[in-house]
Amino acid sequence: MTHNVAILGASGYTGAELVRIIATHPSLRIAALAADRKAGQPMASVFPHLRHLDLPDLVQAGEIDYSGIDLVFAALPHGLSQALVATLPRGIRVVDLGADFRLTPDGYRTWYGADHVAPELQGEAVYGLTEFNRDAIRGARLVAGTGCNAATVQFALTPLIGSGLIDLDDIICDLKNGVSGAGRSLKETMLFAERANDVAGYSQGGRHRHLGEFDEQFSRIAGRDVRIQFTPHLVPVNRGILASCYLKGEAWAVHDALAAAYADEPFLQVLPLGELPQMAHVQGSNFCHVGVTGDRISGRTLVVSTLDNLCKGSSGQAVQNANLMLGEDESAGLMLAPLFP
Amino acid sequence: MTHNVAILGASGYTGAELVRIIATHPSLRIAALAADRKAGQPMASVFPHLRHLDLPDLVQAGEIDYSGIDLVFAALPHGLSQALVATLPRGIRVVDLGADFRLTPDGYRTWYGADHVAPELQGEAVYGLTEFNRDAIRGARLVAGTGCNAATVQFALTPLIGSGLIDLDDIICDLKNGVSGAGRSLKETMLFAERANDVAGYSQGGRHRHLGEFDEQFSRIAGRDVRIQFTPHLVPVNRGILASCYLKGEAWAVHDALAAAYADEPFLQVLPLGELPQMAHVQGSNFCHVGVTGDRISGRTLVVSTLDNLCKGSSGQAVQNANLMLGEDESAGLMLAPLFP
Amino acid sequence: MTHNVAILGASGYTGAELVRIIATHPSLRIAALAADRKAGQPMASVFPHLRHLDLPDLVQAGEIDYSGIDLVFAALPHGLSQALVATLPRGIRVVDLGADFRLTPDGYRTWYGADHVAPELQGEAVYGLTEFNRDAIRGARLVAGTGCNAATVQFALTPLIGSGLIDLDDIICDLKNGVSGAGRSLKETMLFAERANDVAGYSQGGRHRHLGEFDEQFSRIAGRDVRIQFTPHLVPVNRGILASCYLKGEAWAVHDALAAAYADEPFLQVLPLGELPQMAHVQGSNFCHVGVTGDRISGRTLVVSTLDNLCKGSSGQAVQNANLMLGEDESAGLMLAPLFP
Amino acid sequence: MTHNVAILGASGYTGAELVRIIATHPSLRIAALAADRKAGQPMASVFPHLRHLDLPDLVQAGEIDYSGIDLVFAALPHGLSQALVATLPRGIRVVDLGADFRLTPDGYRTWYGADHVAPELQGEAVYGLTEFNRDAIRGARLVAGTGCNAATVQFALTPLIGSGLIDLDDIICDLKNGVSGAGRSLKETMLFAERANDVAGYSQGGRHRHLGEFDEQFSRIAGRDVRIQFTPHLVPVNRGILASCYLKGEAWAVHDALAAAYADEPFLQVLPLGELPQMAHVQGSNFCHVGVTGDRISGRTLVVSTLDNLCKGSSGQAVQNANLMLGEDESAGLMLAPLFP
Repeated sequence: MTHNVAILGASGYTGAELVRIIATHPSLRIAALAADRKAGQPMASVFPHLRHLDLPDLVQAGEIDYSGIDLVFAALPHGLSQALVATLPRGIRVVDLGADFRLTPDGYRTWYGADHVAPELQGEAVYGLTEFNRDAIRGARLVAGTGCNAATVQFALTPLIGSGLIDLDDIICDLKNGVSGAGRSLKETMLFAERANDVAGYSQGGRHRHLGEFDEQFSRIAGRDVRIQFTPHLVPVNRGILASCYLKGEAWAVHDALAAAYADEPFLQVLPLGELPQMAHVQGSNFCHVGVTGDRISGRTLVVSTLDNLCKGSSGQAVQNANLMLGEDESAGLMLAPLFP
Repeated sequence: MTHNVAILGASGYTGAELVRIIATHPSLRIAALAADRKAGQPMASVFPHLRHLDLPDLVQAGEIDYSGIDLVFAALPHGLSQALVATLPRGIRVVDLGADFRLTPDGYRTWYGADHVAPELQGEAVYGLTEFNRDAIRGARLVAGTGCNAATVQFALTPLIGSGLIDLDDIICDLKNGVSGAGRSLKETMLFAERANDVAGYSQGGRHRHLGEFDEQFSRIAGRDVRIQFTPHLVPVNRGILASCYLKGEAWAVHDALAAAYADEPFLQVLPLGELPQMAHVQGSNFCHVGVTGDRISGRTLVVSTLDNLCKGSSGQAVQNANLMLGEDESAGLMLAPLFP
Repeated sequence: MTHNVAILGASGYTGAELVRIIATHPSLRIAALAADRKAGQPMASVFPHLRHLDLPDLVQAGEIDYSGIDLVFAALPHGLSQALVATLPRGIRVVDLGADFRLTPDGYRTWYGADHVAPELQGEAVYGLTEFNRDAIRGARLVAGTGCNAATVQFALTPLIGSGLIDLDDIICDLKNGVSGAGRSLKETMLFAERANDVAGYSQGGRHRHLGEFDEQFSRIAGRDVRIQFTPHLVPVNRGILASCYLKGEAWAVHDALAAAYADEPFLQVLPLGELPQMAHVQGSNFCHVGVTGDRISGRTLVVSTLDNLCKGSSGQAVQNANLMLGEDESAGLMLAPLFP
Repeated sequence: MTHNVAILGASGYTGAELVRIIATHPSLRIAALAADRKAGQPMASVFPHLRHLDLPDLVQAGEIDYSGIDLVFAALPHGLSQALVATLPRGIRVVDLGADFRLTPDGYRTWYGADHVAPELQGEAVYGLTEFNRDAIRGARLVAGTGCNAATVQFALTPLIGSGLIDLDDIICDLKNGVSGAGRSLKETMLFAERANDVAGYSQGGRHRHLGEFDEQFSRIAGRDVRIQFTPHLVPVNRGILASCYLKGEAWAVHDALAAAYADEPFLQVLPLGELPQMAHVQGSNFCHVGVTGDRISGRTLVVSTLDNLCKGSSGQAVQNANLMLGEDESAGLMLAPLFP
């Protein structure tokens, strides 16, 4: 059965990634593409790598005829989604890839510095970390995609948070982040000449907004406040996040817990104990590789997880959630192998 | 209908690319993977990006039971294929990705400096530039994959060679080549530290072996000797070849000829006159983008073609040919969209 | 003897490169740094790699006290220099790194689409390709730095233009250009995510403004109109231009001519016949490497030249010219070895 | 006064970096270059970026006439230096860039798995972390260069180890490493195609040999056993190490201690509290940038240090030490500004 989808924010990287995935998806059909500033242009002008596809031209989000649309992917800057989603017909399912529906009202206010304009939708939204929330996602009308960093770190830690295996008060996550997470917007620091040959930390000291997701999700699971230390670093790579998570706990027990948690997961690959994953081995795919190693210092464990921020960290996750919401096979269209080298 | 295939040389980049493509192919099944030096290892050790797949372990080519194999992909260093293919049961179809069957006996001797060990197979082999040789490929037992440079340039020039539109005695092709074309073998010049931040010409002055293919194919079409000038340059990119072909001829006529030649081709995309293609817009895909522009100097035309050397330039082309040989839809498994950014 | 210099446009890459070079120059002293939009900031905020230097804060160009300044480097967007230089005290020498004084009035109008606001200065300006214009530069008050592409190609061709050795009506120059030539301004096409893994031609068909310089310089030398064909291509490298120049002529004669022309030049290195230079071997330096090779097609010659666009192609050239204008040793401060790898 | 130096191991990256630095050094003169496997070749063949220099051809180390040599730089694989240095005339000063003299006999045995062949020299060697060992280096005959990782982390931590400001039992160092640290030797994992677009941890779990240096140096300062947790990660950059050191302590106090320790150091730049350094801002230079930030979790401090592994982490440090040993100004030849972009 074919489902018609609309993509709002189609001129950004996550919008293009949705199109890339859906291009070979067996049952999704792109019925509308919206991008306010590029409305009127053919998608092939904005993203020439998609020129072989027969796609609708870009329009304003308000110009779409939603009567034939089954599901909307909203890949918009934070703040815009909440207002727009509130205007959509109630019968349309929505997967939001932005930050607008990830947090509780308190969390949103804390990390985004504003009141939410659609608090009732905020309450209805289901947190979209698929592997840990399948049942709720299946029945949801509105699913909130996770932050890409948030996904990477949660795949490393979520099965451990309630396990009693690690010290919840001493979790340090050092991330290496490909630049596409910053999107296609113009910033001097994102110029090729500035990022090539460079590595640099940012949002240091606990200022990154994805911390809101960690705080809420980990505290909920643990039944107590959990605060992790989190520092992302930009690396000269387009796609990929690699999270090195330094824990206090026994490596073998941590490895056992992760291997058990992900034993039946199609997209989560736990490496043998002592091996570490590489960012280049997941690019272009919906897979997340997780490795665990101990240390010469007893009681220390390093968990490293890596995924493609545009795919498993955002648009792939969104399609995975859409598959569940539409009653399709969860992995439909998502078994694309990583591109290496 | 499922066809069982074996991949010989599965530990190289083109071998891994075959597996990547076949992973989501509707009717090909990998029955055997051979790599002499890595025999005994699981594929996931050699290429961890493929660890989610249920693949046979690597074996020696001689260990394969060919009785259930329908088609063999041979992705071997030149010289090895010709001996090996000669030993295969006659009923098995073969797509060779190496250089062993691309040339006539004379051409092979000239460019590879040795007599061929299987001249009868050499005679039987069909040149595998799919778009220009479909009928012969469909009925072939042995198809010779083209060189990756050879494919890129031929997509720019082949429709023009017999057209009378360009001066056949003044064709200059300047190529920019991603490094994966050099394979996974160890050379000092292929170290990251040597290639990063660098651009350098190589095989200059007419020494590159792919010239053998140009000489034979273009001369055959033209009915006279054609010799092009060809200089490849390494650029710090993993995948992709971009060929800038400087011609004497009228741009609009050249554009018309290319647009007409490729009007019905699923993988060949001709850009509007005056626009040039970009390497990043074809990576990870079987598409080839071609652009044509004139110059302020009248009578000059620049044709630029670009493709992914591992995919359309090698393994994607191989699967495209295999599809024809096996009676499947030519584009089966090959409509994967490029990965951008 | 110490000379006080001011740098206008110090917040751009060529401005920073001037500071880098002058940091270890024996007789130049930076007395003022101007950058209108960043005025008031310390240079270390704009370019943290220079934080070890004791530099004046950035000011508006109009705020500088020119009474103690011996020479001004103007590294400004085209159009701004001509107005500004006209306001400087006549006793101050000026090296302009922009496009404002490179062309004749006719050439400027043709390529920049506007009348020059300081035509008398335009007439006074000396073209700054040091190796071919030393005497005039020595006595000049105003020197016009060349385009970076213009420098690279002229080092390959200038000794050949009047030599009778090559066909002046069939010169094709295919350039591979590092991205820093586009400066620090914000363009979507200059984002890391867009340029990484990509090669793409631009300003195709004879639209690049540096053609104005070629036309004027080569025609002047030849005593007749000379028009070259010129296509630059962006490559994912920060610094460097590599020009592949396809000529009709004998390689040995061309090599002899270039070797003779540059025999006593400190910064021009001609490789043995048949060898090609690499971009990575000149980065961070004021050197230009030139290689010549013949082809299997007789009468064809490829000349490849490469230099660092920010150094020899711009700021290093500017310091070289300043050295001459101030009576210093021409290579003072410029013998920094390239940075490899 | 000019000092004659010989470089052993001149065909490696640290050898080339020594030549690059010495090329503009005011008082060092390269009298001999040795590289056993490349003996007989001109340096310009092995490193064409140095072709403008008038250098002696490469010879075997045993062929050098040491009678006129004042100081030897030994940039050799570990194990080779100890035997060779033992054969040099006693009057010659030696700066060893390898691992042979960094550790005590016990430490060497533990981390390199073999007894040292020149234990008396091992005892005589002075540890070459210049900023913390100046007096001993000044009078030394044999100075042991530090590991490049060891230098980076020690610049972040050494002033803190004996300060009482941080918990010595909970130091976690996550490093991002440019690939040139692996040298010019051939390894599949160091090919461009394998490293481009990738980030990957290595020597995980406490297996990296530079831990021997941390253990010895930090324990000596602390007067007790100190063991840090240390994980390096390869990033697709040629030069640079960026160390993110996670500490338990107060950020302002840590910042004060580092700022005080480095107040008079020419090469150590401490950023304002809360700012982090970038790898691209030290490349090509002998500078080390250090930043300190606190965290939303009280009592946590992040210290990030970055330097160029080939320069400050190896060859620049070696020249700095040689300057002290030869009675020259410590920073002679080393004030080269970083190359950005």
